[in-house]
Amino acid sequence: MSGVRLERRDLLAAVRDPALDAINFLNEIIDRYPDAISFAPGAPFGGFIENIDVSRYIERYIDYLGKAQGLNAAQIRRRLYQYGPSRGIINGLLAEALRIDEDITVAPESIVVTVGAQEAMVLALRTLCPGPDSVLAVTDPCFAGLTGAAKVLGIETAAIAESDAGIDFAAIEVACRHARAHGKRIKAMYVAPDYSNPTGMLLDLQGRRRLLELAAREDFLILEDNTYRFTAAHGGTLPSLKALDRQERVLYIGTCAKNCMPGLRVGYVVADQKVVDEQGKMRLLADELSLVKSMVTVNTSPLCQAAVGGLLLEHGGSLSAIGREKAAFYRRNLAHLLDALERHVPLRMREARGISWNRPGGGFFVRMTLPVPADFALVHQSAREFGVLWTPMRNFYQDGGNREIRLSCSYLTEDEIDEGTRRLSGFLESLPFGEAGLVPQQR
Amino acid sequence: MSGVRLERRDLLAAVRDPALDAINFLNEIIDRYPDAISFAPGAPFGGFIENIDVSRYIERYIDYLGKAQGLNAAQIRRRLYQYGPSRGIINGLLAEALRIDEDITVAPESIVVTVGAQEAMVLALRTLCPGPDSVLAVTDPCFAGLTGAAKVLGIETAAIAESDAGIDFAAIEVACRHARAHGKRIKAMYVAPDYSNPTGMLLDLQGRRRLLELAAREDFLILEDNTYRFTAAHGGTLPSLKALDRQERVLYIGTCAKNCMPGLRVGYVVADQKVVDEQGKMRLLADELSLVKSMVTVNTSPLCQAAVGGLLLEHGGSLSAIGREKAAFYRRNLAHLLDALERHVPLRMREARGISWNRPGGGFFVRMTLPVPADFALVHQSAREFGVLWTPMRNFYQDGGNREIRLSCSYLTEDEIDEGTRRLSGFLESLPFGEAGLVPQQR
Repeated sequence: MSGVRLERRDLLAAVRDPALDAINFLNEIIDRYPDAISFAPGAPFGGFIENIDVSRYIERYIDYLGKAQGLNAAQIRRRLYQYGPSRGIINGLLAEALRIDEDITVAPESIVVTVGAQEAMVLALRTLCPGPDSVLAVTDPCFAGLTGAAKVLGIETAAIAESDAGIDFAAIEVACRHARAHGKRIKAMYVAPDYSNPTGMLLDLQGRRRLLELAAREDFLILEDNTYRFTAAHGGTLPSLKALDRQERVLYIGTCAKNCMPGLRVGYVVADQKVVDEQGKMRLLADELSLVKSMVTVNTSPLCQAAVGGLLLEHGGSLSAIGREKAAFYRRNLAHLLDALERHVPLRMREARGISWNRPGGGFFVRMTLPVPADFALVHQSAREFGVLWTPMRNFYQDGGNREIRLSCSYLTEDEIDEGTRRLSGFLESLPFGEAGLVPQQR
Repeated sequence: MSGVRLERRDLLAAVRDPALDAINFLNEIIDRYPDAISFAPGAPFGGFIENIDVSRYIERYIDYLGKAQGLNAAQIRRRLYQYGPSRGIINGLLAEALRIDEDITVAPESIVVTVGAQEAMVLALRTLCPGPDSVLAVTDPCFAGLTGAAKVLGIETAAIAESDAGIDFAAIEVACRHARAHGKRIKAMYVAPDYSNPTGMLLDLQGRRRLLELAAREDFLILEDNTYRFTAAHGGTLPSLKALDRQERVLYIGTCAKNCMPGLRVGYVVADQKVVDEQGKMRLLADELSLVKSMVTVNTSPLCQAAVGGLLLEHGGSLSAIGREKAAFYRRNLAHLLDALERHVPLRMREARGISWNRPGGGFFVRMTLPVPADFALVHQSAREFGVLWTPMRNFYQDGGNREIRLSCSYLTEDEIDEGTRRLSGFLESLPFGEAGLVPQQR
């Protein structure tokens, strides 16, 4: 008897969306070209995982549970090894870190500890956008994990153009009007105001205030993704949207992947919005997200939470302090990449081929425009023939970005950046002239 | 400026469903009545977490990566601390365990390692039931995490009655016909054939074959939940549905929470079904589940996977061996609970009040029928006045089970079971006579 054959078209449509492959692409491509220098992954620099001692962090947290919280050995074991609350166990330490680092004051119970920022996004999207009348506004381009989650959940999105200069506020108003005209509503907007992935955009203070005003006027919530915020120069950060938020309009989503380590899979979301239930009683949006989380992953591994807790305790309770040395490294790397591009991709090559790139002030990424469409076939060609890897950007766009590539500086040493940029220059030199040049080539 | 107030009715409808509180209820209620003896949680016995040494398990796995897989220190660090494949990293060890323990032969790439069995269910449901024409058949009563996930994802369910004697096969055929008559299809059926939660049902061999035949005839897949399978007497297990499956009809869902420990949050799903894509190319259903997972939690913490890997290596590669001592303990506890009930709830009390319970051969749970509706108010009363806790069962039913409670034996010592049963007897004695007795009482 032969096995059942499922038709892919009978499964969730999102699995046929090429954009869903983006993260797997990032994670797996390095293994396929071991000798290539890779500007592809947004993963943390390998040097930062050399001195990790997870056992020590967990021991530090256990010590804290005993001394500061007065738990006995059996209670500590239950906290770490058994099931636990969906909301999390290190919420108090995270609330304290937000107060120290960001001047954000929230109650521990308004935080939900999640399996990375990805699950935080899934919980927020699923809870806030329940039906066909719900629309999620997203920056365009956008972190593919966010738009991918919306696709998996079947949530309609409205694209709001984002550039180095900021986001298109007029487009937000248009999207709100358009939704209303179709009996729908923009329920929330996703934005990463500090060196977004992949744009590198830093939203200025005026833009932040304007976005909050717009959210109040049009009555939507903001999903603020702080993933790359820690890369800003020390003392040089603008206030986060959440710190400026006087209306509890902002859900603040964070990850411990970049500033601690990805292998812990710990993130969090601040959801201090008040929810009025059917009996007029007040709840927190975090209560609702916790309920949904109990049906998605039950709870975040308390061992992984304990490791983050121990890291926080080792760094005076500050997430910024955990990431400070890393932030300096990433800033140096970004400056080095921009400098290497100036040196290895000469002006005549840029002008002849219509090659250009942006110059962000933080984050992990530089965005480059090629003379030809950049697809997965081209990145494989680049790896095979020139030994250099990068990420095609079309999967970050709702519709467009065909000629853009993303260069990440996070995973490489300065020497690798130099050599990688030299190889990239060879690759760019090999490209046929595109729209901006002479012969548009069919690929 | 006052904060935004969200209306709960504008959020995901599932958060207003009382059944979603069930798992949180289980996890949190112990803390509220610290002196009560609790038959409520399905959590593993506390004694089994006394000698846990996560660092040792991880070290054992690291040793294996070096010696058996030939990875160097930097590669090992990357495997454990960085992002990793959505599919998982211990798939080979799990495939080997399934071969040793269950005579199930599957390729490692047909397994997806998940954040507990809960995420495995979410991935399967979301992928297999994409639209309004998809119906999921579920046992009734059913594990509340499965029906809760269906509610969170907005998936229609069809209830198939389950009793100690098995499942209602005629109801499955009716549900398939009913779905077709409405332009829909039963895409999959959830079942836990080995001592299900909460029924304690063991599906006999004939029933297993019949379910597989029915799945082939009506063209649906089976989600087999093996959570309590390990509690069967050694050598006394029936073949799993997956082991009997010759058509790749069965997705086999497992958890490491009960046989290893809950705090790791590691589960898995075997999805070896072939999927034909638009170009006629063959993929595995596990490929699609991994894609969806990349948008839900990205990947399961590799550190937690490493701990499971180390435990497997310490036990000859067998999940059963990890759980063997625990299984013997749970069998003794279950027999002890059934015996204590016989002694402490005398026949005259049962007959006068219409109190009854089942006598399952494995699993964690006994199901008891009360003379009055059993709701959260009654369980709090039982805890407050009699110092004993249990789980109301209505949240496990689509519609019904109002007078049933679930007694778990997994979390207690024999002495606690004795004392808890004595207290329970006092509680039962205090109950007014219900439908089966004299005065039906309004609660």
